[in-house]
Amino acid sequence: MAAMLPWLESQYGNASSRHEYGRRARQAIDEARQRVAAAVNAHPTEVIFTSGGSESNNLFLKGAAACLKPGLMAVSAIEHPCVLKPVEQLRRSGWDARYLPVDGAGRVKTDDYAGVLLDRPKLLSVMLANNETGVVQDVAALANAAMVTGAWFHSDGVQALGKLDIDFRALNGTGVHALTLSGHKAGGPKGAAALVIDKRIELQPLISGGGHERGLRSGTENVPAIVGFGVAAELAAQRIAEHSSRMRKLQAKFESGLSALGARIFAGDAPRLANTTFFAFAGIDGETLVGKLDREGFAVASGAACSSANPESSHVLRAMGVAPEIARGAVRVSLGDGNTDAEIEQFINALQVTVGRLQGLTAVS
Amino acid sequence: MAAMLPWLESQYGNASSRHEYGRRARQAIDEARQRVAAAVNAHPTEVIFTSGGSESNNLFLKGAAACLKPGLMAVSAIEHPCVLKPVEQLRRSGWDARYLPVDGAGRVKTDDYAGVLLDRPKLLSVMLANNETGVVQDVAALANAAMVTGAWFHSDGVQALGKLDIDFRALNGTGVHALTLSGHKAGGPKGAAALVIDKRIELQPLISGGGHERGLRSGTENVPAIVGFGVAAELAAQRIAEHSSRMRKLQAKFESGLSALGARIFAGDAPRLANTTFFAFAGIDGETLVGKLDREGFAVASGAACSSANPESSHVLRAMGVAPEIARGAVRVSLGDGNTDAEIEQFINALQVTVGRLQGLTAVS
Repeated sequence: MAAMLPWLESQYGNASSRHEYGRRARQAIDEARQRVAAAVNAHPTEVIFTSGGSESNNLFLKGAAACLKPGLMAVSAIEHPCVLKPVEQLRRSGWDARYLPVDGAGRVKTDDYAGVLLDRPKLLSVMLANNETGVVQDVAALANAAMVTGAWFHSDGVQALGKLDIDFRALNGTGVHALTLSGHKAGGPKGAAALVIDKRIELQPLISGGGHERGLRSGTENVPAIVGFGVAAELAAQRIAEHSSRMRKLQAKFESGLSALGARIFAGDAPRLANTTFFAFAGIDGETLVGKLDREGFAVASGAACSSANPESSHVLRAMGVAPEIARGAVRVSLGDGNTDAEIEQFINALQVTVGRLQGLTAVS
Repeated sequence: MAAMLPWLESQYGNASSRHEYGRRARQAIDEARQRVAAAVNAHPTEVIFTSGGSESNNLFLKGAAACLKPGLMAVSAIEHPCVLKPVEQLRRSGWDARYLPVDGAGRVKTDDYAGVLLDRPKLLSVMLANNETGVVQDVAALANAAMVTGAWFHSDGVQALGKLDIDFRALNGTGVHALTLSGHKAGGPKGAAALVIDKRIELQPLISGGGHERGLRSGTENVPAIVGFGVAAELAAQRIAEHSSRMRKLQAKFESGLSALGARIFAGDAPRLANTTFFAFAGIDGETLVGKLDREGFAVASGAACSSANPESSHVLRAMGVAPEIARGAVRVSLGDGNTDAEIEQFINALQVTVGRLQGLTAVS
């Protein structure tokens, strides 16, 4: 906030203007670009600022597809809707698509993946970490296996920034060409995100015009949000070890409490982000549980916020082979920097009472 | 700022989440939508929030084109690059395009326009007011003339919000189907804008995903910026009469000073916004003049900020038939709420000295 405030209050210059107000704004954006690049070990010229993760994912998929002859694209079956929907749109304009299956732990099945690679996809997208389960994919290995095909490989890293060490240079070496990041998932403001991209990849802009962001994303830069994203990315990268170890401890405490109450934790044994737990209680509807917990002051979700309007059960759990009657019970808890041991205990207690009531049993005190 | 701060500081809920933090954010967005709609006499459900004017213009042009069989589109020759560039992209995918010529006063030539309408364009876009000259088009008359063709008519109103009375209901009655607005042009923050659209118009989203904004613009909503846009639009609409009359007086004073110094004011006699003056001095390079004035503390532009990277002379002036050697001298001054009579006098004095020096003459004191 301290870094953003001047750009909201008095420094309202357009970064493309050549007068002093404009030059100051340009410098602030240049610095933010360096910060974001440094946080993921990329070169500043590889960072394209956008308005959000959804835009970055759309930009890569549609922008790359527009530079290629339609062919095969493949994405994991558990991608965020802002990957899956663009794929649907591209299918209507001549592209074929495959959805890479995942196993019960939510990880892309390597045999199926190898089979898809034999069909020479031109575009591939597999997320670094899933937004519902927190499951982390071995993107480096997947990209590496695809290198021989010449496919352009993208990864949605929205959930990973600030939670996993991200090294774009190393990922790029294994064949990852583009990476989506989002500011507000790492303590930054809404409204700023990035597509980090290997400059050998050709993209057609989604938003064309004044030629901002190397011609790949036109529009007056959102200076305050970009500045906030830069600082947040830097802080997140600095704190990642400490943050992760703190989150891991909270998560372990939380999940042992959950297990003791009889919850099923989805992908509980898979490599996961330290802040995400997706679980269900047999016979209890997720929506109902979320509503009851909300009234007690606990903000949790029954799935992805991005598809809360959608009453269908989670496509991620379906892809993992979870039965619909269990998936209907799914509740997601995302822990943050502010959460404490005491809150975990309060939450587990509230859950015990609520679940007990909902199961029509006397709560065990 | 006061309206935005809570959403930046503590109310960080995702507006699609169903818990209390989410519901509060949703309510804030709903209220902002009502404010923006009321400011331009539209229905809230006609307002699609985007990240900026460039996105709104791209969304309309590409989104509508994707729902139609390729045919003819026509836009004025003086549109902003974020209209002209999408048109170029669409030409590469099968569309034909015409660029409506303007007269010396920067207004679309009605005869040529009538001729284009005979060729049955499917998409039309003419801006409400130009970003370089401030010239206002008679969009209602142009749209009305196009109604018989069944074309979808869009207008870029980015420069007009807060400066002209905008009545979307009335414009829609004359055949305007969509209107682009931008928050930061009306005292709001960067990062929030809108496409106001007649719901009978079909659009394919540029950014697809979670289905936000009636499926036309996915992505976690930028709550603080949208809230700020709402309040700014409301204030701008309330203050428009007072603001315009104050700006008109400043503009008259400024332009009489300019004329006395021998400046040529582009489209000086055309209906123009009260805050924009585009002018040139014979034999003086615009860039040079802007640089000298900047060093004296005056933030002015040699053209549109959006194309400051572009060393070519203004495409707007070229379309108006201004000779390149004169267009090269163009300087744009945009007055704002904060400007005073005294500043106009200081600026005219600075200009007199600087222009005198640049012309190699002794400054007349």
